[in-house]
Amino acid sequence: MYSVNVRDHFMIAHSFRGAVFGPAQRLHGATYVVDLELRRRELDADGVVVDIGLATEALRGVLAELNFRNLDEEPAFAGRNTTTEFLARAIHQRLAAQVAAGRLGPHAGGLDSARVTLHESHVAWAAYDAPLQPAAPA
Amino acid sequence: MYSVNVRDHFMIAHSFRGAVFGPAQRLHGATYVVDLELRRRELDADGVVVDIGLATEALRGVLAELNFRNLDEEPAFAGRNTTTEFLARAIHQRLAAQVAAGRLGPHAGGLDSARVTLHESHVAWAAYDAPLQPAAPA
Amino acid sequence: MYSVNVRDHFMIAHSFRGAVFGPAQRLHGATYVVDLELRRRELDADGVVVDIGLATEALRGVLAELNFRNLDEEPAFAGRNTTTEFLARAIHQRLAAQVAAGRLGPHAGGLDSARVTLHESHVAWAAYDAPLQPAAPA
Amino acid sequence: MYSVNVRDHFMIAHSFRGAVFGPAQRLHGATYVVDLELRRRELDADGVVVDIGLATEALRGVLAELNFRNLDEEPAFAGRNTTTEFLARAIHQRLAAQVAAGRLGPHAGGLDSARVTLHESHVAWAAYDAPLQPAAPA
Amino acid sequence: MYSVNVRDHFMIAHSFRGAVFGPAQRLHGATYVVDLELRRRELDADGVVVDIGLATEALRGVLAELNFRNLDEEPAFAGRNTTTEFLARAIHQRLAAQVAAGRLGPHAGGLDSARVTLHESHVAWAAYDAPLQPAAPA
Amino acid sequence: MYSVNVRDHFMIAHSFRGAVFGPAQRLHGATYVVDLELRRRELDADGVVVDIGLATEALRGVLAELNFRNLDEEPAFAGRNTTTEFLARAIHQRLAAQVAAGRLGPHAGGLDSARVTLHESHVAWAAYDAPLQPAAPA
Repeated sequence: MYSVNVRDHFMIAHSFRGAVFGPAQRLHGATYVVDLELRRRELDADGVVVDIGLATEALRGVLAELNFRNLDEEPAFAGRNTTTEFLARAIHQRLAAQVAAGRLGPHAGGLDSARVTLHESHVAWAAYDAPLQPAAPA
Repeated sequence: MYSVNVRDHFMIAHSFRGAVFGPAQRLHGATYVVDLELRRRELDADGVVVDIGLATEALRGVLAELNFRNLDEEPAFAGRNTTTEFLARAIHQRLAAQVAAGRLGPHAGGLDSARVTLHESHVAWAAYDAPLQPAAPA
Repeated sequence: MYSVNVRDHFMIAHSFRGAVFGPAQRLHGATYVVDLELRRRELDADGVVVDIGLATEALRGVLAELNFRNLDEEPAFAGRNTTTEFLARAIHQRLAAQVAAGRLGPHAGGLDSARVTLHESHVAWAAYDAPLQPAAPA
Repeated sequence: MYSVNVRDHFMIAHSFRGAVFGPAQRLHGATYVVDLELRRRELDADGVVVDIGLATEALRGVLAELNFRNLDEEPAFAGRNTTTEFLARAIHQRLAAQVAAGRLGPHAGGLDSARVTLHESHVAWAAYDAPLQPAAPA
Repeated sequence: MYSVNVRDHFMIAHSFRGAVFGPAQRLHGATYVVDLELRRRELDADGVVVDIGLATEALRGVLAELNFRNLDEEPAFAGRNTTTEFLARAIHQRLAAQVAAGRLGPHAGGLDSARVTLHESHVAWAAYDAPLQPAAPA
Repeated sequence: MYSVNVRDHFMIAHSFRGAVFGPAQRLHGATYVVDLELRRRELDADGVVVDIGLATEALRGVLAELNFRNLDEEPAFAGRNTTTEFLARAIHQRLAAQVAAGRLGPHAGGLDSARVTLHESHVAWAAYDAPLQPAAPA
């Protein structure tokens, strides 16, 4: 299995509900350094897993929807704790939709799976790893 | 699959037996920077893989049993080479016992597997990765 | 010149005022991974720059005053943009006060200077570097 | 499953063919920091996954065949785009051949799989991960 | 003294002349991960060392002139060994010219000095550190 | 001012005397990842701060004298606490002697100063920074 990974970051405010979160129930924030790993069984005709330029743009676009925001006020996350692991999946879903819509190039339908990792500090990170649906034929 | 990772470290002395180890047969030591990755198929009711505070405490507690020690004198390791990969499994077993004993919280029985990685320098690391046993019902 | 460095982190929400900040004028947040470097011309009688345990505690204490907060509501920062470089100095001042008050041990009066670095992502950091005042004699 | 990882690097020139590569169609170059992860179900009699000294030598040897070269002129890669993911597999194949030839020691036949990761910058890497063939009996 | 640092990278081919360079006399290449540290004694009216957006753009612009090129064919470097330390200074000079030309904003004339660091692998880097000339008054 | 940095590591056992060290009074150990930064005002005739191959060899040689040893039994350190900062200076002195003896090449007499940094974990490091004596003329 081949993998390609691109990295970017975003910075948000949020708070959590539930005694388990202790002081993180207060409004605070985080920088998330994000790794997007895309996997494929065989290389495409250009010898790549994916067009790395398009993958970088897709990741930047998805993170731009979250960057410099207070996630407590995002309708998409209403009633949810935007924990690091929850956000990893939300970003995975949005990127999977980009792949399915052909935004990562015509060969990206051959992608097998993706892993999205959010590094929140030098001592903690979370990730979501799942298959990608094959793009529907045009 | 979701993952959460916490990081800590410990510092020990030890020596190895066997010609394959060359100068590492002499008494020397290491700093091990430890990553504990815990995995789970679905998030719990709080939207997390595990209570990260409890995971951090459990890792610190297990490493405290080894920290600032000469492993050549630890009864638990008598007759064994305490290589990086061996220690990764030993720490994995101790953490799995913590999970099974409920020390990572009541929902931690839903954890699927764990990976323990010991970074011994900027050019070498070892890991042990295995399923966690479901916690016995109370 | 000798240096010792300890690292910790904190997570906050804030917003900036001024067109130069673009989208960072919205409420957002950051993880700051903080390096505290303490310098000294000669080692003390124990052969150290500073008691690293006390330095770690002092850093944790200063960061705890900021951690999991919305800095826009902190009276100490009223009317100020809490930029990374501004926060580096604020933390430097608070740590210098700890040194002057003897919280880093009786020999810490011999410390020469300190550098506080705040890493805000994998591509940006800021720092403040300045002399420490000698502790007043008891 | 146990893993051991060793790291080294190499520096090459190359160019790519295909409009998808944009300015990387020009002759340029890269530093690749390479991680070789070797996996094994059970430790050998010495308590290791592999003789780490031999693994380090094998990696260095394979990278030495590529280091300080213009890959556009390497007969082994004629007509191919030497992308990061392509090189990860090429290095995997050469290391697998070393394992099969017994160069990683007599116990290395017990190795299960290997992952070769090439870090090309602080924001991008690629990898190839595949089983190793059991060494033929002597 | 305050510092702000931004990071980017570029990828080039080159070769060196002189027996001291051994196999690096052959055409090869490198990824350089570049840190630009800008220093200032006092913050400007916005509470920053420099407009970090403009600093990031200026660094990207200077690196774009070198990225994806064979430095052996660059007229600006004719007859010179484009070693890591030489390139650090070349980039420093080009960035200093950007500051002097007002491209980092109207307050950037207050910048004191800059350090340009080029990381060429996980085990080697080089830097050039020098004062910046005050911008001429408009 | 120009800098060049090379990195290597060593692994030792030791213990400390003095109540300030708490549990580190027991025999334990550490991995030290070592950065050697060499500085020079002007590049030499080859366009380098120092022959990086010779600098790498010199660092490896100095660390080999310490690697895989119990520092409590080293005559050179009798009666001293081999703290991270103490070791940084000891390594600085040994490397300065190598420079003075001409082991870093005939132009290394032009080196201005050196910084030796020992990273002992992901959260702590120490350094020693001092001028180098000009090499005596042959």
